[in-house]
Amino acid sequence: MERIEHHASFGGWQEVYQHQSKQLNCTVNFAVYLPPHLKGEKLPVLYWLSGLTCNEQNFITKAAAQKYAAEHQIILVAPDTSPRGEDVANDAAYDLGQGAGFYVDATQQPWADHFRMYSYLTEELPALINSHFPVNGKQSIAGHSMGGHGALIIGLRNPAQYQSISAFAPIVAPTQVPWGQKAFQTYLGADQNTWRNYDAVTLIQQTSQQLPILIDQGQDDPFLEEQLKPQLLQQAAQIQNYPLILNLRSGYDHSYYFIASFIEDHIRFHAQYLK
Amino acid sequence: MERIEHHASFGGWQEVYQHQSKQLNCTVNFAVYLPPHLKGEKLPVLYWLSGLTCNEQNFITKAAAQKYAAEHQIILVAPDTSPRGEDVANDAAYDLGQGAGFYVDATQQPWADHFRMYSYLTEELPALINSHFPVNGKQSIAGHSMGGHGALIIGLRNPAQYQSISAFAPIVAPTQVPWGQKAFQTYLGADQNTWRNYDAVTLIQQTSQQLPILIDQGQDDPFLEEQLKPQLLQQAAQIQNYPLILNLRSGYDHSYYFIASFIEDHIRFHAQYLK
Repeated sequence: MERIEHHASFGGWQEVYQHQSKQLNCTVNFAVYLPPHLKGEKLPVLYWLSGLTCNEQNFITKAAAQKYAAEHQIILVAPDTSPRGEDVANDAAYDLGQGAGFYVDATQQPWADHFRMYSYLTEELPALINSHFPVNGKQSIAGHSMGGHGALIIGLRNPAQYQSISAFAPIVAPTQVPWGQKAFQTYLGADQNTWRNYDAVTLIQQTSQQLPILIDQGQDDPFLEEQLKPQLLQQAAQIQNYPLILNLRSGYDHSYYFIASFIEDHIRFHAQYLK
Repeated sequence: MERIEHHASFGGWQEVYQHQSKQLNCTVNFAVYLPPHLKGEKLPVLYWLSGLTCNEQNFITKAAAQKYAAEHQIILVAPDTSPRGEDVANDAAYDLGQGAGFYVDATQQPWADHFRMYSYLTEELPALINSHFPVNGKQSIAGHSMGGHGALIIGLRNPAQYQSISAFAPIVAPTQVPWGQKAFQTYLGADQNTWRNYDAVTLIQQTSQQLPILIDQGQDDPFLEEQLKPQLLQQAAQIQNYPLILNLRSGYDHSYYFIASFIEDHIRFHAQYLK
Protein backbone atom coordinates (compact mmCIF):
# COMPACT_ATOMS: atom_id res chain seq x y z
CA MET A 1 0.00 0.00 0.00
CA GLU A 2 1.52 3.28 -1.14
CA ARG A 3 0.34 6.79 -0.29
CA ILE A 4 0.15 8.80 -3.52
CA GLU A 5 -1.61 11.97 -2.29
CA HIS A 6 -1.52 13.83 1.03
CA HIS A 7 -3.26 17.21 1.50
CA ALA A 8 -4.16 19.11 4.65
CA SER A 9 -7.94 19.61 4.73
CA PHE A 10 -10.09 21.09 7.52
CA GLY A 11 -7.48 20.30 10.14
CA GLY A 12 -7.15 16.68 8.96
CA TRP A 13 -5.67 14.95 5.93
CA GLN A 14 -7.12 14.03 2.56
CA GLU A 15 -5.06 11.13 1.25
CA VAL A 16 -5.09 8.72 -1.68
CA TYR A 17 -3.54 5.26 -1.54
CA GLN A 18 -2.72 2.70 -4.19
CA HIS A 19 -2.53 -1.03 -3.58
CA GLN A 20 -2.53 -4.35 -5.38
CA SER A 21 -5.99 -5.87 -4.89
CA LYS A 22 -6.37 -9.63 -4.72
CA GLN A 23 -10.10 -9.50 -5.44
CA LEU A 24 -9.77 -7.10 -8.39
CA ASN A 25 -6.51 -8.64 -9.58
CA CYS A 26 -5.05 -5.23 -10.45
CA THR A 27 -3.69 -2.04 -8.91
CA VAL A 28 -6.42 0.20 -7.48
CA ASN A 29 -6.66 3.56 -5.73
CA PHE A 30 -8.78 4.54 -2.78
CA ALA A 31 -9.13 7.87 -0.96
CA VAL A 32 -9.16 8.35 2.81
CA TYR A 33 -10.07 11.48 4.73
CA LEU A 34 -8.62 11.43 8.24
CA PRO A 35 -10.30 14.03 10.45
CA PRO A 36 -8.34 15.82 13.15
CA HIS A 37 -8.06 13.51 16.17
CA LEU A 38 -5.93 12.85 19.22
CA LYS A 39 -3.13 10.32 19.08
CA GLY A 40 -4.51 6.90 19.97
CA GLU A 41 -8.13 7.93 19.36
CA LYS A 42 -10.24 5.43 17.37
CA LEU A 43 -12.84 6.69 14.91
CA PRO A 44 -15.80 5.34 12.91
CA VAL A 45 -15.67 5.01 9.11
CA LEU A 46 -18.10 6.11 6.40
CA TYR A 47 -17.59 4.41 3.03
CA TRP A 48 -18.63 6.38 -0.06
CA LEU A 49 -19.32 4.63 -3.37
CA SER A 50 -19.31 6.80 -6.49
CA GLY A 51 -21.35 6.62 -9.66
CA LEU A 52 -20.80 5.74 -13.31
CA THR A 53 -17.54 7.04 -14.89
CA CYS A 54 -16.18 8.14 -11.50
CA ASN A 55 -13.00 7.09 -9.74
CA GLU A 56 -11.73 7.82 -6.22
CA GLN A 57 -11.28 11.52 -7.06
CA ASN A 58 -14.83 12.73 -7.71
CA PHE A 59 -16.13 12.59 -4.17
CA ILE A 60 -13.03 14.01 -2.52
CA THR A 61 -12.72 16.97 -4.90
CA LYS A 62 -16.40 17.87 -5.41
CA ALA A 63 -18.63 16.79 -2.52
CA ALA A 64 -17.24 19.13 0.17
CA ALA A 65 -17.71 16.41 2.78
CA GLN A 66 -14.43 16.88 4.63
CA LYS A 67 -15.71 19.80 6.75
CA TYR A 68 -18.50 17.67 8.22
CA ALA A 69 -16.34 14.57 8.60
CA ALA A 70 -13.92 16.77 10.57
CA GLU A 71 -16.71 18.14 12.76
CA HIS A 72 -18.16 14.67 13.49
CA GLN A 73 -14.76 12.93 13.57
CA ILE A 74 -15.60 10.32 10.94
CA ILE A 75 -13.03 8.76 8.61
CA LEU A 76 -14.22 8.86 4.97
CA VAL A 77 -13.14 6.11 2.57
CA ALA A 78 -13.86 6.55 -1.15
CA PRO A 79 -12.78 3.65 -3.40
CA ASP A 80 -12.70 3.52 -7.18
CA THR A 81 -15.83 2.25 -8.97
CA SER A 82 -14.20 -0.69 -10.80
CA PRO A 83 -10.95 -2.46 -11.56
CA ARG A 84 -8.80 -0.63 -14.12
CA GLY A 85 -5.81 -1.15 -16.38
CA GLU A 86 -4.75 -2.34 -19.79
CA ASP A 87 -5.20 -5.98 -18.78
CA VAL A 88 -8.74 -5.37 -17.48
CA ALA A 89 -11.76 -5.97 -19.72
CA ASN A 90 -13.50 -2.80 -20.88
CA ASP A 91 -16.27 -1.49 -23.08
CA ALA A 92 -16.60 1.70 -25.12
CA ALA A 93 -19.90 2.56 -23.42
CA TYR A 94 -19.78 4.77 -20.32
CA ASP A 95 -22.12 2.42 -18.45
CA LEU A 96 -20.14 -0.81 -18.81
CA GLY A 97 -16.62 -1.95 -17.97
CA GLN A 98 -14.02 0.28 -16.34
CA GLY A 99 -15.74 2.99 -14.30
CA ALA A 100 -18.94 0.94 -14.24
CA GLY A 101 -18.39 -2.07 -11.97
CA PHE A 102 -21.93 -1.89 -10.52
CA TYR A 103 -20.62 -3.31 -7.22
CA VAL A 104 -21.18 -6.96 -8.19
CA ASP A 105 -18.94 -10.04 -8.40
CA ALA A 106 -19.02 -10.82 -12.12
CA THR A 107 -19.49 -14.47 -13.10
CA GLN A 108 -19.26 -14.04 -16.87
CA GLN A 109 -16.19 -13.71 -19.08
CA PRO A 110 -14.26 -11.59 -19.87
CA TRP A 111 -15.32 -9.82 -16.65
CA ALA A 112 -15.03 -12.44 -13.90
CA ASP A 113 -11.24 -12.21 -13.48
CA HIS A 114 -11.32 -8.60 -12.28
CA PHE A 115 -14.85 -7.29 -11.72
CA ARG A 116 -15.34 -8.31 -8.07
CA MET A 117 -16.23 -4.99 -6.48
CA TYR A 118 -18.73 -6.62 -4.09
CA SER A 119 -16.10 -8.81 -2.45
CA TYR A 120 -13.51 -6.05 -2.63
CA LEU A 121 -15.77 -3.70 -0.69
CA THR A 122 -17.20 -6.16 1.82
CA GLU A 123 -13.96 -8.06 2.57
CA GLU A 124 -10.67 -6.82 1.20
CA LEU A 125 -10.94 -3.04 1.55
CA PRO A 126 -12.42 -3.01 5.10
CA ALA A 127 -9.67 -5.39 6.24
CA LEU A 128 -7.07 -3.05 4.75
CA ILE A 129 -8.66 0.05 6.29
CA ASN A 130 -9.01 -1.65 9.68
CA SER A 131 -5.37 -2.66 9.74
CA HIS A 132 -3.89 0.69 8.65
CA PHE A 133 -6.11 3.42 10.12
CA PRO A 134 -7.34 4.34 13.62
CA VAL A 135 -10.81 2.79 13.38
CA ASN A 136 -13.17 1.84 16.21
CA GLY A 137 -15.06 -0.88 14.30
CA LYS A 138 -18.21 1.12 13.56
CA GLN A 139 -18.90 1.78 9.90
CA SER A 140 -21.66 3.10 7.66
CA ILE A 141 -22.01 3.29 3.89
CA ALA A 142 -23.24 5.87 1.39
CA GLY A 143 -23.09 6.51 -2.33
CA HIS A 144 -24.36 8.27 -5.45
CA SER A 145 -26.32 6.85 -8.38
CA MET A 146 -24.63 3.51 -9.24
CA GLY A 147 -22.80 3.98 -5.91
CA GLY A 148 -26.11 4.57 -4.14
CA HIS A 149 -27.14 1.16 -5.47
CA GLY A 150 -23.85 -0.22 -4.16
CA ALA A 151 -24.36 1.29 -0.70
CA LEU A 152 -27.91 -0.03 -0.49
CA ILE A 153 -27.13 -3.62 -1.53
CA ILE A 154 -23.99 -3.86 0.59
CA GLY A 155 -25.74 -2.45 3.66
CA LEU A 156 -28.88 -4.54 3.18
CA ARG A 157 -26.92 -7.78 2.73
CA ASN A 158 -24.51 -7.11 5.61
CA PRO A 159 -26.52 -5.30 8.29
CA ALA A 160 -24.28 -6.56 11.10
CA GLN A 161 -21.29 -4.76 9.56
CA TYR A 162 -22.86 -1.30 9.17
CA GLN A 163 -24.76 1.18 11.33
CA SER A 164 -26.63 3.11 8.62
CA ILE A 165 -27.02 3.56 4.86
CA SER A 166 -27.54 6.66 2.75
CA ALA A 167 -27.70 7.46 -0.93
CA PHE A 168 -28.04 10.34 -3.37
CA ALA A 169 -30.10 9.52 -6.46
CA PRO A 170 -29.54 5.76 -6.18
CA ILE A 171 -30.44 3.09 -8.72
CA VAL A 172 -32.79 1.24 -6.35
CA ALA A 173 -34.11 -1.43 -8.71
CA PRO A 174 -31.36 -2.38 -11.16
CA THR A 175 -33.22 -5.52 -12.28
CA GLN A 176 -36.03 -3.27 -13.54
CA VAL A 177 -34.14 -0.44 -15.32
CA PRO A 178 -31.92 -0.23 -18.43
CA TRP A 179 -28.60 0.59 -16.69
CA GLY A 180 -28.94 -2.33 -14.30
CA GLN A 181 -30.32 -4.81 -16.80
CA LYS A 182 -27.48 -4.13 -19.23
CA ALA A 183 -24.82 -4.46 -16.51
CA PHE A 184 -26.31 -7.54 -14.85
CA GLN A 185 -26.86 -9.34 -18.17
CA THR A 186 -23.21 -8.65 -19.01
CA TYR A 187 -21.56 -9.35 -15.65
CA LEU A 188 -23.95 -12.00 -14.23
CA GLY A 189 -25.45 -13.65 -17.31
CA ALA A 190 -28.99 -14.52 -18.32
CA ASP A 191 -30.15 -16.20 -15.08
CA GLN A 192 -32.10 -13.42 -13.40
CA ASN A 193 -32.15 -15.30 -10.08
CA THR A 194 -28.53 -14.20 -9.63
CA TRP A 195 -29.49 -10.57 -10.29
CA ARG A 196 -31.77 -10.38 -7.24
CA ASN A 197 -28.78 -10.59 -4.86
CA TYR A 198 -27.85 -7.15 -6.11
CA ASP A 199 -31.25 -5.47 -6.21
CA ALA A 200 -32.14 -3.18 -3.28
CA VAL A 201 -35.91 -3.45 -3.80
CA THR A 202 -35.62 -7.24 -3.56
CA LEU A 203 -33.17 -7.18 -0.65
CA ILE A 204 -35.16 -4.75 1.50
CA GLN A 205 -37.91 -7.39 1.62
CA GLN A 206 -35.49 -10.03 2.91
CA THR A 207 -33.12 -8.30 5.29
CA SER A 208 -32.90 -9.70 8.82
CA GLN A 209 -32.02 -6.39 10.49
CA GLN A 210 -33.30 -2.96 9.56
CA LEU A 211 -30.50 -0.40 9.21
CA PRO A 212 -31.79 3.17 8.94
CA ILE A 213 -31.74 4.44 5.34
CA LEU A 214 -31.65 8.07 4.15
CA ILE A 215 -32.12 8.91 0.46
CA ASP A 216 -32.02 12.31 -1.24
CA GLN A 217 -33.29 12.58 -4.80
CA GLY A 218 -33.33 15.65 -7.03
CA GLN A 219 -36.63 16.17 -8.81
CA ASP A 220 -34.93 17.64 -11.90
CA ASP A 221 -32.59 14.65 -12.20
CA PRO A 222 -32.65 13.60 -15.89
CA PHE A 223 -32.30 9.91 -14.87
CA LEU A 224 -35.11 9.94 -12.31
CA GLU A 225 -37.94 8.46 -14.36
CA GLU A 226 -36.10 5.85 -16.40
CA GLN A 227 -33.19 4.66 -14.24
CA LEU A 228 -33.62 5.62 -10.58
CA LYS A 229 -37.30 5.16 -9.56
CA PRO A 230 -36.84 5.70 -5.80
CA GLN A 231 -40.57 5.22 -5.24
CA LEU A 232 -40.06 1.48 -5.86
CA LEU A 233 -37.80 1.26 -2.81
CA GLN A 234 -40.06 3.53 -0.79
CA GLN A 235 -43.07 1.31 -1.53
CA ALA A 236 -41.17 -1.87 -0.64
CA ALA A 237 -39.96 -0.24 2.59
CA GLN A 238 -43.49 0.80 3.57
CA ILE A 239 -44.75 -2.78 3.15
CA GLN A 240 -41.96 -4.01 5.44
CA ASN A 241 -42.37 -1.12 7.88
CA TYR A 242 -38.70 -0.42 7.14
CA PRO A 243 -37.23 2.92 8.42
CA LEU A 244 -36.46 4.78 5.19
CA ILE A 245 -36.42 8.56 4.72
CA LEU A 246 -36.79 9.72 1.10
CA ASN A 247 -36.27 13.45 0.55
CA LEU A 248 -37.34 14.73 -2.85
CA ARG A 249 -35.47 17.96 -3.62
CA SER A 250 -37.15 20.39 -5.98
CA GLY A 251 -34.90 21.79 -8.72
CA TYR A 252 -31.86 19.60 -8.02
CA ASP A 253 -30.22 17.49 -10.72
CA HIS A 254 -27.87 14.46 -10.73
CA SER A 255 -24.61 16.39 -10.24
CA TYR A 256 -22.18 16.89 -7.39
CA TYR A 257 -23.77 20.34 -6.88
CA PHE A 258 -26.74 18.37 -5.56
CA ILE A 259 -24.54 16.14 -3.39
CA ALA A 260 -22.59 19.08 -1.98
CA SER A 261 -25.85 20.83 -1.06
CA PHE A 262 -27.01 17.97 1.18
CA ILE A 263 -23.86 16.08 2.20
CA GLU A 264 -23.92 17.84 5.59
CA ASP A 265 -27.31 16.21 6.29
CA HIS A 266 -26.00 12.78 5.29
CA ILE A 267 -22.87 13.02 7.44
CA ARG A 268 -24.99 14.14 10.38
CA PHE A 269 -27.43 11.26 9.75
CA HIS A 270 -24.62 8.71 9.86
CA ALA A 271 -22.91 10.39 12.82
CA GLN A 272 -25.89 9.75 15.10
CA TYR A 273 -25.63 6.00 14.43
CA LEU A 274 -21.83 5.87 14.44
CA LYS A 275 -21.50 7.48 17.87
CA MET B 1 -24.73 35.49 -23.96
CA GLU B 2 -25.86 31.89 -23.73
CA ARG B 3 -26.44 29.87 -20.56
CA ILE B 4 -24.67 26.52 -20.93
CA GLU B 5 -25.00 25.12 -17.39
CA HIS B 6 -27.70 25.48 -14.74
CA HIS B 7 -27.59 23.48 -11.48
CA ALA B 8 -29.49 23.94 -8.25
CA SER B 9 -26.96 24.51 -5.43
CA PHE B 10 -27.65 25.40 -1.77
CA GLY B 11 -31.03 26.86 -2.62
CA GLY B 12 -29.62 29.00 -5.44
CA TRP B 13 -28.23 28.33 -8.90
CA GLN B 14 -24.77 27.53 -10.16
CA GLU B 15 -24.67 28.60 -13.80
CA VAL B 16 -22.13 28.88 -16.61
CA TYR B 17 -22.47 31.34 -19.48
CA GLN B 18 -20.69 31.68 -22.80
CA HIS B 19 -20.31 34.94 -24.68
CA GLN B 20 -18.31 36.58 -27.44
CA SER B 21 -15.81 38.88 -25.75
CA LYS B 22 -14.74 42.08 -27.52
CA GLN B 23 -11.64 42.48 -25.35
CA LEU B 24 -10.52 38.86 -25.72
CA ASN B 25 -11.68 38.62 -29.32
CA CYS B 26 -12.98 35.07 -28.82
CA THR B 27 -15.74 33.05 -27.17
CA VAL B 28 -15.27 32.75 -23.40
CA ASN B 29 -17.08 31.10 -20.49
CA PHE B 30 -17.75 32.49 -17.04
CA ALA B 31 -19.53 30.95 -14.05
CA VAL B 32 -22.11 32.68 -11.87
CA TYR B 33 -23.48 31.47 -8.54
CA LEU B 34 -26.81 33.12 -7.75
CA PRO B 35 -27.71 32.70 -4.08
CA PRO B 36 -31.32 32.32 -3.01
CA HIS B 37 -32.96 35.76 -2.97
CA LEU B 38 -36.30 37.45 -3.19
CA LYS B 39 -37.58 38.70 -6.51
CA GLY B 40 -36.36 42.25 -7.05
CA GLU B 41 -33.64 41.97 -4.40
CA LYS B 42 -30.21 43.36 -5.41
CA LEU B 43 -27.04 41.63 -4.23
CA PRO B 44 -23.30 42.30 -4.04
CA VAL B 45 -20.80 40.42 -6.24
CA LEU B 46 -17.56 38.64 -5.39
CA TYR B 47 -15.30 37.99 -8.38
CA TRP B 48 -13.01 34.96 -8.17
CA LEU B 49 -9.89 34.67 -10.35
CA SER B 50 -8.37 31.21 -10.72
CA GLY B 51 -4.80 30.08 -11.09
CA LEU B 52 -2.56 28.61 -13.79
CA THR B 53 -4.16 25.90 -16.00
CA CYS B 54 -7.64 26.59 -14.57
CA ASN B 55 -10.79 27.63 -16.37
CA GLU B 56 -14.20 28.70 -15.03
CA GLN B 57 -14.87 25.19 -13.67
CA ASN B 58 -12.21 24.73 -10.99
CA PHE B 59 -13.58 27.14 -8.42
CA ILE B 60 -17.22 26.17 -8.84
CA THR B 61 -16.60 22.41 -8.59
CA LYS B 62 -13.86 22.30 -5.93
CA ALA B 63 -13.91 25.32 -3.60
CA ALA B 64 -17.25 24.62 -1.87
CA ALA B 65 -17.97 28.35 -1.75
CA GLN B 66 -21.65 28.20 -2.70
CA LYS B 67 -22.83 27.38 0.82
CA TYR B 68 -21.31 30.57 2.22
CA ALA B 69 -22.33 32.71 -0.75
CA ALA B 70 -25.88 31.47 -0.11
CA GLU B 71 -25.67 32.30 3.59
CA HIS B 72 -24.28 35.81 2.99
CA GLN B 73 -26.31 36.40 -0.19
CA ILE B 74 -23.35 37.21 -2.40
CA ILE B 75 -23.26 36.53 -6.16
CA LEU B 76 -20.04 34.71 -7.14
CA VAL B 77 -18.55 35.30 -10.60
CA ALA B 78 -15.70 33.04 -11.76
CA PRO B 79 -14.28 33.83 -15.22
CA ASP B 80 -11.82 31.81 -17.26
CA THR B 81 -8.11 32.58 -16.82
CA SER B 82 -7.34 33.49 -20.44
CA PRO B 83 -8.72 33.68 -23.96
CA ARG B 84 -9.02 30.28 -25.65
CA GLY B 85 -9.53 28.70 -29.04
CA GLU B 86 -7.73 27.48 -32.13
CA ASP B 87 -7.20 31.05 -33.35
CA VAL B 88 -5.70 32.16 -30.04
CA ALA B 89 -1.92 32.11 -29.50
CA ASN B 90 -0.70 29.38 -27.19
CA ASP B 91 2.41 27.79 -25.74
CA ALA B 92 3.21 24.20 -24.77
CA ALA B 93 4.22 25.28 -21.24
CA TYR B 94 1.56 25.22 -18.53
CA ASP B 95 2.57 28.70 -17.37
CA LEU B 96 2.20 30.59 -20.65
CA GLY B 97 -0.60 31.09 -23.19
CA GLN B 98 -4.06 29.59 -22.82
CA GLY B 99 -4.85 29.00 -19.15
CA ALA B 100 -2.10 31.44 -18.15
CA GLY B 101 -3.28 34.96 -19.03
CA PHE B 102 -1.73 36.50 -15.88
CA TYR B 103 -4.50 39.15 -15.87
CA VAL B 104 -2.56 41.63 -18.02
CA ASP B 105 -3.28 43.40 -21.31
CA ALA B 106 -0.57 41.99 -23.57
CA THR B 107 1.29 44.45 -25.79
CA GLN B 108 3.51 41.96 -27.62
CA GLN B 109 2.71 39.72 -30.59
CA PRO B 110 1.34 37.11 -31.06
CA TRP B 111 -0.47 37.77 -27.75
CA ALA B 112 -1.83 41.30 -28.01
CA ASP B 113 -4.87 40.42 -30.18
CA HIS B 114 -6.50 38.25 -27.49
CA PHE B 115 -4.67 38.38 -24.15
CA ARG B 116 -6.47 41.35 -22.58
CA MET B 117 -7.71 39.82 -19.31
CA TYR B 118 -7.09 43.05 -17.37
CA SER B 119 -9.50 45.07 -19.51
CA TYR B 120 -11.90 42.13 -19.76
CA LEU B 121 -12.16 41.90 -15.98
CA THR B 122 -12.18 45.60 -15.15
CA GLU B 123 -14.50 46.73 -17.95
CA GLU B 124 -16.26 44.18 -20.13
CA LEU B 125 -17.21 41.45 -17.67
CA PRO B 126 -18.51 43.75 -14.87
CA ALA B 127 -20.64 45.60 -17.45
CA LEU B 128 -22.08 42.29 -18.61
CA ILE B 129 -22.72 41.09 -15.05
CA ASN B 130 -24.29 44.40 -14.05
CA SER B 131 -26.66 44.35 -17.00
CA HIS B 132 -27.82 40.73 -16.64
CA PHE B 133 -27.87 39.91 -12.92
CA PRO B 134 -29.55 41.44 -9.83
CA VAL B 135 -26.53 43.39 -8.54
CA ASN B 136 -26.48 46.30 -6.08
CA GLY B 137 -23.22 47.84 -7.31
CA LYS B 138 -20.98 46.60 -4.49
CA GLN B 139 -18.23 44.22 -5.50
CA SER B 140 -15.11 42.59 -4.09
CA ILE B 141 -12.42 40.44 -5.66
CA ALA B 142 -10.54 37.29 -4.67
CA GLY B 143 -8.36 34.65 -6.29
CA HIS B 144 -5.84 31.84 -6.05
CA SER B 145 -2.15 31.83 -7.03
CA MET B 146 -1.98 33.60 -10.45
CA GLY B 147 -5.58 34.60 -9.70
CA GLY B 148 -4.54 35.92 -6.30
CA HIS B 149 -2.09 38.14 -8.19
CA GLY B 150 -4.98 39.16 -10.48
CA ALA B 151 -7.25 40.03 -7.55
CA LEU B 152 -4.54 42.08 -5.85
CA ILE B 153 -3.53 44.13 -8.87
CA ILE B 154 -7.11 44.75 -10.00
CA GLY B 155 -8.22 45.75 -6.52
CA LEU B 156 -5.16 47.92 -5.86
CA ARG B 157 -5.48 49.75 -9.20
CA ASN B 158 -9.24 50.25 -8.94
CA PRO B 159 -10.03 50.78 -5.27
CA ALA B 160 -13.15 52.82 -6.01
CA GLN B 161 -14.71 49.80 -7.77
CA TYR B 162 -14.19 47.21 -5.00
CA GLN B 163 -14.86 46.93 -1.28
CA SER B 164 -12.22 44.35 -0.32
CA ILE B 165 -9.57 41.99 -1.72
CA SER B 166 -8.57 38.48 -0.71
CA ALA B 167 -6.23 35.82 -2.01
CA PHE B 168 -5.09 32.27 -1.43
CA ALA B 169 -1.39 31.69 -2.08
CA PRO B 170 -1.05 34.70 -4.41
CA ILE B 171 1.91 35.62 -6.59
CA VAL B 172 2.47 38.98 -4.88
CA ALA B 173 5.64 40.12 -6.68
CA PRO B 174 5.51 38.82 -10.27
CA THR B 175 8.33 41.16 -11.35
CA GLN B 176 10.64 39.36 -8.89
CA VAL B 177 9.75 35.66 -9.46
CA PRO B 178 10.17 33.20 -12.38
CA TRP B 179 6.46 32.71 -13.22
CA GLY B 180 5.83 36.45 -13.42
CA GLN B 181 9.08 37.37 -15.15
CA LYS B 182 8.47 34.77 -17.88
CA ALA B 183 4.89 35.91 -18.44
CA PHE B 184 5.61 39.65 -18.33
CA GLN B 185 8.62 39.35 -20.65
CA THR B 186 6.41 37.44 -23.09
CA TYR B 187 3.21 39.47 -22.87
CA LEU B 188 4.62 42.95 -22.06
CA GLY B 189 8.11 42.90 -23.55
CA ALA B 190 11.51 43.90 -22.21
CA ASP B 191 10.63 47.32 -20.75
CA GLN B 192 10.21 46.52 -17.07
CA ASN B 193 8.52 49.87 -16.41
CA THR B 194 5.38 48.35 -17.96
CA TRP B 195 5.60 45.36 -15.62
CA ARG B 196 5.17 47.45 -12.48
CA ASN B 197 1.53 48.22 -13.36
CA TYR B 198 0.84 44.57 -12.68
CA ASP B 199 2.93 44.01 -9.56
CA ALA B 200 1.08 44.04 -6.23
CA VAL B 201 4.17 44.89 -4.15
CA THR B 202 4.72 47.95 -6.33
CA LEU B 203 1.04 48.93 -6.46
CA ILE B 204 0.46 48.71 -2.69
CA GLN B 205 2.99 51.52 -2.29
CA GLN B 206 1.07 53.76 -4.70
CA THR B 207 -2.64 53.11 -4.11
CA SER B 208 -4.76 56.12 -3.27
CA GLN B 209 -7.29 54.22 -1.14
CA GLN B 210 -6.60 51.28 1.16
CA LEU B 211 -9.00 48.39 0.57
CA PRO B 212 -8.77 45.71 3.28
CA ILE B 213 -6.75 42.68 2.13
CA LEU B 214 -6.92 39.12 3.49
CA ILE B 215 -4.36 36.52 2.40
CA ASP B 216 -4.15 32.85 3.37
CA GLN B 217 -0.95 30.98 2.57
CA GLY B 218 -0.20 27.30 3.16
CA GLN B 219 3.19 26.70 4.73
CA ASP B 220 3.67 23.40 2.87
CA ASP B 221 2.93 25.03 -0.48
CA PRO B 222 5.65 23.84 -2.90
CA PHE B 223 5.62 27.24 -4.66
CA LEU B 224 5.93 29.33 -1.51
CA GLU B 225 9.65 30.05 -1.50
CA GLU B 226 10.33 30.54 -5.20
CA GLN B 227 7.12 31.97 -6.69
CA LEU B 228 4.79 33.36 -4.02
CA LYS B 229 6.83 35.19 -1.34
CA PRO B 230 3.90 36.75 0.56
CA GLN B 231 6.31 38.34 3.03
CA LEU B 232 7.28 40.84 0.29
CA LEU B 233 3.71 42.17 0.23
CA GLN B 234 3.44 42.05 4.00
CA GLN B 235 6.62 44.13 4.37
CA ALA B 236 5.45 46.68 1.80
CA ALA B 237 2.06 46.88 3.54
CA GLN B 238 3.68 47.48 6.94
CA ILE B 239 5.71 50.38 5.57
CA GLN B 240 2.52 51.95 4.18
CA ASN B 241 0.51 51.13 7.30
CA TYR B 242 -1.80 49.27 4.91
CA PRO B 243 -4.49 46.97 6.46
CA LEU B 244 -3.36 43.49 5.34
CA ILE B 245 -4.02 40.22 7.18
CA LEU B 246 -1.66 37.38 6.26
CA ASN B 247 -2.57 33.97 7.72
CA LEU B 248 0.13 31.32 7.42
CA ARG B 249 -1.50 27.88 7.59
CA SER B 250 0.66 25.05 8.86
CA GLY B 251 0.52 21.86 6.78
CA TYR B 252 -1.56 23.25 3.91
CA ASP B 253 -0.43 23.02 0.28
CA HIS B 254 -1.37 24.85 -2.95
CA SER B 255 -4.47 22.78 -3.77
CA TYR B 256 -8.21 23.37 -3.66
CA TYR B 257 -8.24 21.32 -0.44
CA PHE B 258 -6.52 24.34 1.10
CA ILE B 259 -8.97 26.78 -0.51
CA ALA B 260 -12.02 24.76 0.57
CA SER B 261 -10.73 24.67 4.15
CA PHE B 262 -10.68 28.48 4.46
CA ILE B 263 -13.13 29.78 1.84
CA GLU B 264 -15.75 30.30 4.56
CA ASP B 265 -13.40 32.80 6.25
CA HIS B 266 -12.85 34.64 2.97
CA ILE B 267 -16.55 34.89 2.11
CA ARG B 268 -17.25 36.17 5.63
CA PHE B 269 -14.40 38.69 5.31
CA HIS B 270 -15.84 40.08 2.09
CA ALA B 271 -19.40 39.97 3.40
CA GLN B 272 -18.65 42.49 6.15
CA TYR B 273 -17.46 45.04 3.55
CA LEU B 274 -20.15 44.22 0.97
CA LYS B 275 -23.05 44.78 3.38
